[in-house]
Amino acid sequence: MKSISLLGATGSIGQQTLDVIASNPQAFKLSAMSVGRNIEAAEEIIQKFNPEICAVQLEEDAKTLRSRINNSGTKIVSGMDGLIEAAVSTDSSIVVNAVIGSVGLLPTLKAIEAKKTIALANKETLVTAGHLVMEKAKQHQVAILPVDSEHSAIYQCLNGENIDDVEKLILTASGGSFRDKTREELKNVTVKEALNHPNWSMGAKITIDSATMMNKGLEVIEAHWLFSFDYSKIDVILHKESIIHSMVEFADTSIIAHLGQPDMRVPIQYALTHPERLELVNGKRLNLWEVGKLHFQKMDYDRFRCLKLAFEAGNMGGLMPTVLNAANEKAVELFLNGHITFLEIEELIERAMLQAVNVNKPELDAIQETDKRTRHFVESLLNKGR
Amino acid sequence: MKSISLLGATGSIGQQTLDVIASNPQAFKLSAMSVGRNIEAAEEIIQKFNPEICAVQLEEDAKTLRSRINNSGTKIVSGMDGLIEAAVSTDSSIVVNAVIGSVGLLPTLKAIEAKKTIALANKETLVTAGHLVMEKAKQHQVAILPVDSEHSAIYQCLNGENIDDVEKLILTASGGSFRDKTREELKNVTVKEALNHPNWSMGAKITIDSATMMNKGLEVIEAHWLFSFDYSKIDVILHKESIIHSMVEFADTSIIAHLGQPDMRVPIQYALTHPERLELVNGKRLNLWEVGKLHFQKMDYDRFRCLKLAFEAGNMGGLMPTVLNAANEKAVELFLNGHITFLEIEELIERAMLQAVNVNKPELDAIQETDKRTRHFVESLLNKGR
Repeated sequence: MKSISLLGATGSIGQQTLDVIASNPQAFKLSAMSVGRNIEAAEEIIQKFNPEICAVQLEEDAKTLRSRINNSGTKIVSGMDGLIEAAVSTDSSIVVNAVIGSVGLLPTLKAIEAKKTIALANKETLVTAGHLVMEKAKQHQVAILPVDSEHSAIYQCLNGENIDDVEKLILTASGGSFRDKTREELKNVTVKEALNHPNWSMGAKITIDSATMMNKGLEVIEAHWLFSFDYSKIDVILHKESIIHSMVEFADTSIIAHLGQPDMRVPIQYALTHPERLELVNGKRLNLWEVGKLHFQKMDYDRFRCLKLAFEAGNMGGLMPTVLNAANEKAVELFLNGHITFLEIEELIERAMLQAVNVNKPELDAIQETDKRTRHFVESLLNKGR
Repeated sequence: MKSISLLGATGSIGQQTLDVIASNPQAFKLSAMSVGRNIEAAEEIIQKFNPEICAVQLEEDAKTLRSRINNSGTKIVSGMDGLIEAAVSTDSSIVVNAVIGSVGLLPTLKAIEAKKTIALANKETLVTAGHLVMEKAKQHQVAILPVDSEHSAIYQCLNGENIDDVEKLILTASGGSFRDKTREELKNVTVKEALNHPNWSMGAKITIDSATMMNKGLEVIEAHWLFSFDYSKIDVILHKESIIHSMVEFADTSIIAHLGQPDMRVPIQYALTHPERLELVNGKRLNLWEVGKLHFQKMDYDRFRCLKLAFEAGNMGGLMPTVLNAANEKAVELFLNGHITFLEIEELIERAMLQAVNVNKPELDAIQETDKRTRHFVESLLNKGR
């Protein structure tokens, strides 16, 4: 029986993690959880899973929640301290970090110090502070298990292999909602169109990142840290069916690939059961003859400029991935709220990168400061420009 | 430095094994070899690799060869005793069994007793005597490493995995020379057409087996023994590009696949370097965007009756795979010599299976006797029928 702390329980990954836990009561229990401001959902989860602790974002929500669940044994905490408490205070052996955005960083570092295995769905943690996270994980001999389909695929393809024999990692990209549109056609796309991803059902932020290809860019940086590979050894290929989730190419030209239905419960469950596997309850098996054809195209870095920017930020290192990520988070927010057009997302990110002053191996303070400053900068561009 | 005994040095696999050895002189040396009757080729190989021992099929050829290479330190031996000597007498740690047909069985068993790792390209060894070979391998704690692309693929996909988590093995089949022909069109195909395989350059026997799909059938039986899976857990899918070499499906719906160019040196070299990998000298890397599309089709067991017969023989077990294999070897020989039509191959095999009396867990004598009797039976059918 594995005891699990789930940070970000009401998001898309969080909900599917709860689904995996509920489907395997003999294997998993939920000992701690966090939500943002959705306390109705938190109440439901608490009633169903009865965790020891639940962290919410604001103390006022904590108070409301406490009054609603007054018969439960669940302790309700709030703020960053609460989030960290949810990450470290119970007997959980695994912390699933499924919070959205850079707020996931500190609890991850604290959970590593507490020697908990990290199942990481929060890309920003590695993107902004990969050097800190991986160094700490190494120091405390803690495994960082990826919870997105691409990195889980690579992780699985590396099973039993010698890392020195790897020639390159090949991430597949569906191309997102707009894969067949030209740059000209991208000028007038709407938020609604952008949110309509062809293969995966995900949250709004990641669906936009998928349409801009920034999602893949963040994954490239994440792969760099997770697997310790230089950016020259990480490739991206367009594969619109999202059936091959990613691949690893070896010295002898062999390529090992992970295939499956687009079901996020697979990488979630794999992170929870690793190195074993469990039957996926109500999982749909892949019959390739039903799919019939798989398509592959060379990545066009001019068409998908956000991916190019991500490779550039990754190669520059230091604070630059933090700038890339913060500018992107702010720009996507502005797009979702109707303040900027789709193509302005990449424009704002590029301008943020151009103005940034880089520092090598930054500490947490500098990362958080840069994150904040970048968001302000992007916001200020908007105010000036309109 | 690994020392290698290569049985069947002049065949297609043998030649490519020599290529791998010659390309990696720091890693491999040839200590023993065997050829059939091609003593010119044997002489060349001896001059280039200077093995300690070379076995040929006939003593008269051995005499000729001895006189030709009288300055060399290579001992020339002949017959089955010579073949066994080549397998076991040197300090080789690996025996590559690349002989064609059921003659490969006895040397494999002797090499296992001598505690040598077996790199097995000779399908008939497992098809006819899988129970004996795997039992002996277990008893002597010897690894049997597959040297065809499908089983090597599966072997690689199983790396680091728990065998209990496997849902099924999925072998890919190109469909061979006649994949797009109807059964009606198969009636009048020629030997020349049958030898024209779309993806792989191989020997004549295996190319015909590829066109009849018997090659895949033998591979299914081989997979059953190599990986200890019931036939209900082995699937075959049509995949005309032969880019995915085979796959393993796991309990959690994950599928791990092995992809690459059609280059037999990859599985050969993998068997020699396992569990490590080496750069493939002059190997062509696979770019999926150059391939563009991969196609998959459900297997049609009525169209490819030899595959159906192989599953049936495998499920019946005992002597039946020996009957299947011997009848197939004889029938393919008759086809290649122009004595029967393409579709008569499967007809002769089926008739041989129908007349056979099965025995459970047969000993080597019974297998060899059945092999011989089946060949005579098939030949007698021909004489009666024409």
